[in-house]
Amino acid sequence: MDQLWFYEKHTRGYGVHWKVKKVLHTEKTRFQELSVIDTVEWGKTLVLDGNIQVTERDEFIYHEMIAHIAMNSHPHPQKILIIGGGDGGTAREVLKHDSVQVVDLVEIDERVVENSKIYLPTMACAFNDSRLKLHIEDGIKFVQDTSQSYDLVIVDSSDPIGPAVELYSSRFYQDVYQCLRQDGMIAVQSESPVFYQDIFVKVFQNLSSVFPVVKVCLAPIMTYTAGPWSFTLGSKKRDPARIADDKKVIDGLKYYNGDLHRSAFILPQFIKDMLR
Amino acid sequence: MDQLWFYEKHTRGYGVHWKVKKVLHTEKTRFQELSVIDTVEWGKTLVLDGNIQVTERDEFIYHEMIAHIAMNSHPHPQKILIIGGGDGGTAREVLKHDSVQVVDLVEIDERVVENSKIYLPTMACAFNDSRLKLHIEDGIKFVQDTSQSYDLVIVDSSDPIGPAVELYSSRFYQDVYQCLRQDGMIAVQSESPVFYQDIFVKVFQNLSSVFPVVKVCLAPIMTYTAGPWSFTLGSKKRDPARIADDKKVIDGLKYYNGDLHRSAFILPQFIKDMLR
Repeated sequence: MDQLWFYEKHTRGYGVHWKVKKVLHTEKTRFQELSVIDTVEWGKTLVLDGNIQVTERDEFIYHEMIAHIAMNSHPHPQKILIIGGGDGGTAREVLKHDSVQVVDLVEIDERVVENSKIYLPTMACAFNDSRLKLHIEDGIKFVQDTSQSYDLVIVDSSDPIGPAVELYSSRFYQDVYQCLRQDGMIAVQSESPVFYQDIFVKVFQNLSSVFPVVKVCLAPIMTYTAGPWSFTLGSKKRDPARIADDKKVIDGLKYYNGDLHRSAFILPQFIKDMLR
Repeated sequence: MDQLWFYEKHTRGYGVHWKVKKVLHTEKTRFQELSVIDTVEWGKTLVLDGNIQVTERDEFIYHEMIAHIAMNSHPHPQKILIIGGGDGGTAREVLKHDSVQVVDLVEIDERVVENSKIYLPTMACAFNDSRLKLHIEDGIKFVQDTSQSYDLVIVDSSDPIGPAVELYSSRFYQDVYQCLRQDGMIAVQSESPVFYQDIFVKVFQNLSSVFPVVKVCLAPIMTYTAGPWSFTLGSKKRDPARIADDKKVIDGLKYYNGDLHRSAFILPQFIKDMLR
C-alpha cells in the first residue's frame, strides 16, 4: 500500500505527515491507545494516543540528551530513578555509565514495556540489564511513597495531557526533591519552547520554586515538533551545564559529546527572554 | 474559509502542513511560481515553486544566522555582496552594522523584490537604505564579471534545483574566492544535514576545495525541515567560529547573541561524523 500516511496535528495550525510502510500493531491499553507503525523515514515508531513517542532512527537524540547531561554533570551517579521511559531508551543510556548500581524504572503502562520488547528491541534491551528494576505503577505515587534516595531522577514522560499532567507540577517536583541525595538532580523533558511555550515556561517556574539551580538545554529532534526541543534540569547544588571534574565522557555516542554538553545550554535570545 | 492548508513535501516520506488564513497573491514570474500566503502560525509567507522561503515570524533565525556569524567574525566588514536574498531580510541584518559602506544585492528575479516590498515590508525595508545597491541579474554571472572586491559574500539562495544548482558548485566558489579581499569570507545556507545530507556534505567538500578554513554552524528553523538547519562558512584566513577582537556585538537581536556564535559551531556527533 503506497498511500498510507500518518498525520500528527501539533497545534491548530501545524501538523506533520510521515509515510507509513505498515501498521505493525494497535491496541487499547488501560491507559491509552498504543500503536506501532513502520515509517519510511524513521523506521519503527511507537505512537501513544496519536502522538509519536519514539522512533528507531532518531530516538538517540532524545535519550542521549535526557540521560548523559545529568549523568555527566553528577560526579558519581549510582542510584537512578526513571519515571516513565517504558520503551527502555533512557535506561539504556543511563546504564552505559559504570558508576550505576541501580536503576528503578517506574512505568505506569505495562503494555508500553511489553510492546517495546517485541517491536523496539534496540531500546528495550535495557530490560535485560540486571541493574534495572522495573516497577509497573504510577510514578507520582512511587515518588511519594519511596523510602529510597537517589542521585538522579529522570522524568521521561509523555506530554502533559491526562495522567501525565501531575508530572509537571511543583508538588511532584517537591516530592522528587525529598527523595534526592544532597547533591542530586532532576532532568525532565520540557516540550517545545516555540509551540508549547506555556508548558516550557511553567516547568522552569515550577522547578525553580523547588530547586536552587535550574537550567535549560536544547536539541532539535526531528520527529517531535520542528525547531528546538527542551530539557530542564533542577539541581540541589551542582551546575548541570558543567561536566563533573575528572569525568571521562563515554565515546561512541551519536548525538552527545563533551563540547555539546556545554553548548546545549547556550540559548537563542528569544528563548532566553521567555525565562526572564 | 477554515479548511485551507498548505502542504509541503520535503522528502518521499515526510511533509509538513500549515494552516492558511488566506492566499494573498500568486503569479508566474520569468523564473518560478511565486505565492504569498498568510498562515496561522507564521504570518505572511513567501512561497517559491511550492517551497516556503521566508515567513514573517521565524525569518529572524535564518537571517540573523546567515548575516551576523560572518559579520561578527570579520573585524571590519565594509563591502558586502549578497547573492539572492531578494526579500531583503539578509540585507536588513547586514545593514545593522555601522562598518558597512556598500551592500550589492544580486537577485535574479525582480518579482521577488517587488512582492516583498508589498507583502513583507519588515524585510524589504532594507531596500530603503542608501548603502544598498540592487542588481537584477544572475548572481553567477555577476561574480564572474565583477571587478569589485568584497569583505564578505553571502549566498542566500533557494534549494539547489533548477537555476540555483550552480550556486552550490566548486566553480562558483572559486569565482567568489577571486572577488574576496585577502581576509574575506563566504557564508552560504547549506540545507538540512538530516534530510539533504548529500547537499550538505557536497557544499562542505566544494568549499573545502577552494577555501583553507571551512566551518559549519547549525540552527533549528521551524519552517524549514524539522531538526537542525546548516550554514557553512569558507574563509581565506580568519576563523568564522570566533568573534573578531574588540567587536561589539549588536544588542536586541532575537536569535543571535555572542555566546550563541561560538556554540552554534559545536556539532552533534552524527553531523560531525558526516564531515570526516
